[in-house]
Amino acid sequence: MKATACRKTHFNAAHRLMNPAWDEKRNAEIFGVCSNPNFHGHNYDLVVKVTGDIDPDTGYVMDMKILKEITDQFVIQKFDHKNLNIEVEEFRLLNPTAENIAIVIWNILREKIDSRFSLSVVLYETERNFVEFSGN
Amino acid sequence: MKATACRKTHFNAAHRLMNPAWDEKRNAEIFGVCSNPNFHGHNYDLVVKVTGDIDPDTGYVMDMKILKEITDQFVIQKFDHKNLNIEVEEFRLLNPTAENIAIVIWNILREKIDSRFSLSVVLYETERNFVEFSGN
Amino acid sequence: MKATACRKTHFNAAHRLMNPAWDEKRNAEIFGVCSNPNFHGHNYDLVVKVTGDIDPDTGYVMDMKILKEITDQFVIQKFDHKNLNIEVEEFRLLNPTAENIAIVIWNILREKIDSRFSLSVVLYETERNFVEFSGN
Amino acid sequence: MKATACRKTHFNAAHRLMNPAWDEKRNAEIFGVCSNPNFHGHNYDLVVKVTGDIDPDTGYVMDMKILKEITDQFVIQKFDHKNLNIEVEEFRLLNPTAENIAIVIWNILREKIDSRFSLSVVLYETERNFVEFSGN
Amino acid sequence: MKATACRKTHFNAAHRLMNPAWDEKRNAEIFGVCSNPNFHGHNYDLVVKVTGDIDPDTGYVMDMKILKEITDQFVIQKFDHKNLNIEVEEFRLLNPTAENIAIVIWNILREKIDSRFSLSVVLYETERNFVEFSGN
Amino acid sequence: MKATACRKTHFNAAHRLMNPAWDEKRNAEIFGVCSNPNFHGHNYDLVVKVTGDIDPDTGYVMDMKILKEITDQFVIQKFDHKNLNIEVEEFRLLNPTAENIAIVIWNILREKIDSRFSLSVVLYETERNFVEFSGN
Repeated sequence: MKATACRKTHFNAAHRLMNPAWDEKRNAEIFGVCSNPNFHGHNYDLVVKVTGDIDPDTGYVMDMKILKEITDQFVIQKFDHKNLNIEVEEFRLLNPTAENIAIVIWNILREKIDSRFSLSVVLYETERNFVEFSGN
Repeated sequence: MKATACRKTHFNAAHRLMNPAWDEKRNAEIFGVCSNPNFHGHNYDLVVKVTGDIDPDTGYVMDMKILKEITDQFVIQKFDHKNLNIEVEEFRLLNPTAENIAIVIWNILREKIDSRFSLSVVLYETERNFVEFSGN
Repeated sequence: MKATACRKTHFNAAHRLMNPAWDEKRNAEIFGVCSNPNFHGHNYDLVVKVTGDIDPDTGYVMDMKILKEITDQFVIQKFDHKNLNIEVEEFRLLNPTAENIAIVIWNILREKIDSRFSLSVVLYETERNFVEFSGN
Repeated sequence: MKATACRKTHFNAAHRLMNPAWDEKRNAEIFGVCSNPNFHGHNYDLVVKVTGDIDPDTGYVMDMKILKEITDQFVIQKFDHKNLNIEVEEFRLLNPTAENIAIVIWNILREKIDSRFSLSVVLYETERNFVEFSGN
Repeated sequence: MKATACRKTHFNAAHRLMNPAWDEKRNAEIFGVCSNPNFHGHNYDLVVKVTGDIDPDTGYVMDMKILKEITDQFVIQKFDHKNLNIEVEEFRLLNPTAENIAIVIWNILREKIDSRFSLSVVLYETERNFVEFSGN
Repeated sequence: MKATACRKTHFNAAHRLMNPAWDEKRNAEIFGVCSNPNFHGHNYDLVVKVTGDIDPDTGYVMDMKILKEITDQFVIQKFDHKNLNIEVEEFRLLNPTAENIAIVIWNILREKIDSRFSLSVVLYETERNFVEFSGN
């Protein structure tokens, strides 16, 4: 009996879109105002979805308190009130688009969550722009 | 031509998390404040999703008024303003976690909705904690 | 590495539900107040979801600005502040249910978005009634 | 001990903006797409706010069930799934802007709610455009 | 230069509506399903609003971290995952309607927040039913 | 007959909290992670509220299209995708707290909106932290 347990959390961060292999002119052409060298920022909402069998003893797919602790410790503390380009090492050479942020978060969580669970994430950059990633 | 028609509704209920096979001490250890013997409660939001062919006469997968009536009659009247542990028979021996509530609701609706439709439910215990179940 | 990029937008429109092959009496029986001959209306929210490989140069599945432009030009300008039954040609003979509106939008976008991307849409008629369509 | 009790409800309606004293050309100039002669529509959200002393017996400013019944009977039944310009008599000669709809609703409710209560309404035409009216 | 700084938080609790001076029959007549003796519950959202001069050194009306700490310590810890009727002493003899909960919270916070600030609270029992209280 | 017309809009920006008269150590003590020298950011939501008589010809307090144009031209273009500390001149010497941002926006709009209207703004830094300012 498989179900999907979902936990929504959030972090606030600065970023700019840029491909480090390109010069500023090309970054500005491709990414427009999103590539402002002085940065802009977002309130990111993150939904972490864990699919697996329901434990008959607890009635949980996974204890949400534990999922919350893992997410807080390894994602939120690393991303919240940070400049993603400067302070989150994964984005030194990787453009912090919503797609790439979602993948970085998924990779972090995938190592911390038991492999018997499927994992997917939804990352809202704004309520109008969001990305889903399931590791495929 | 298959589409999925979705209807969101809600109910307010009290519950406590507990495994009836465990003593209070163990329930408190595993479920923490969620196992308060005096209960706590939630505004649950429920999304019922029905997938099937679109009827060429009506343009509906299923008439939402009928889906609403089925959900109101068999789920909302049974759960709304109730104590799930005490007053909803399915939870006499089953821990009313979001996962188990979603499965109980799915089973109720599965019997009332024609088998030519696929059925899934999303149950929000809070806007931060929610569960998806598709009968698999 | 496939991800799904999602863009939410909205339009306000009038419509009435009716099967043009039926007389008014039968339309009223089947569709009730939704078939009011003088029309009613909605604030529709539309989520367009595009799934594909992430471009390693941009970090995008697809540039959201381009997806927004396509959606604005071919969907929003055609639907916003319009009477769907009278002014959107696809509904001359097709009942503008949420299901059918979702399919019409999907068909419009499918022609404009490169076939290497999968496409799905979610159309909210209200926050309680919504439809998902993926072209299957 | 005065508090304000608030009840949110909704209705879906068609309308067009127009001053009946003006010709179509002038209406189109002033109101743009909002004056489309074929109508468009909205999901209106309405918040009714009642301020008064808290009854020491009930702990209520006013029983919300009664406020809901009054609002349903005199506002929602009159406005929901209707064409405001054609079917709601107050708008035969009055432009159904959000401002005027709010005032019409306020006047209806003011007659039905005991004068010992202050009354105000908030009418959301969309989540981005809304109007507050307190009878002043 | 006065502004109002607002902080939204939440708690989940069980309650039932009842006047302890009435018998069960009268409570059931007046409060209906809300008086279910087995309790029901809600996800309460609380907005605390503090009005005062902006401190020229900090640019704050009041440090939101401090307002959050006060609210967490004196309101959330006292109300969250509790049965309001049984476990929150203020409701031993007071009916836990949204109005009365708002007043109890306001009184708690009024003692902890410097009297140079004006204070008001908004308490959402559901997203459709809410109460505002400013101490008047 | 006075009503209040409200328009919600948004912008995304980077900022850090700091009093330019203080050294980094003191800024870090007072503002914590919000004073990260590399900046963080937010999706700000802004509600502009204009109170005045309803024009009997239009049924408007003020044409929302015009209010939107003023807000877009003088606020959104100046703030959106910007670093508030570096790129918005008003914050060269002023700490960009939500309170101060609200006041700066109010001052900008107050000059552009006819003095026969009252003006207030609500600025959401997150959905949990927001500020109201009415010019008093």
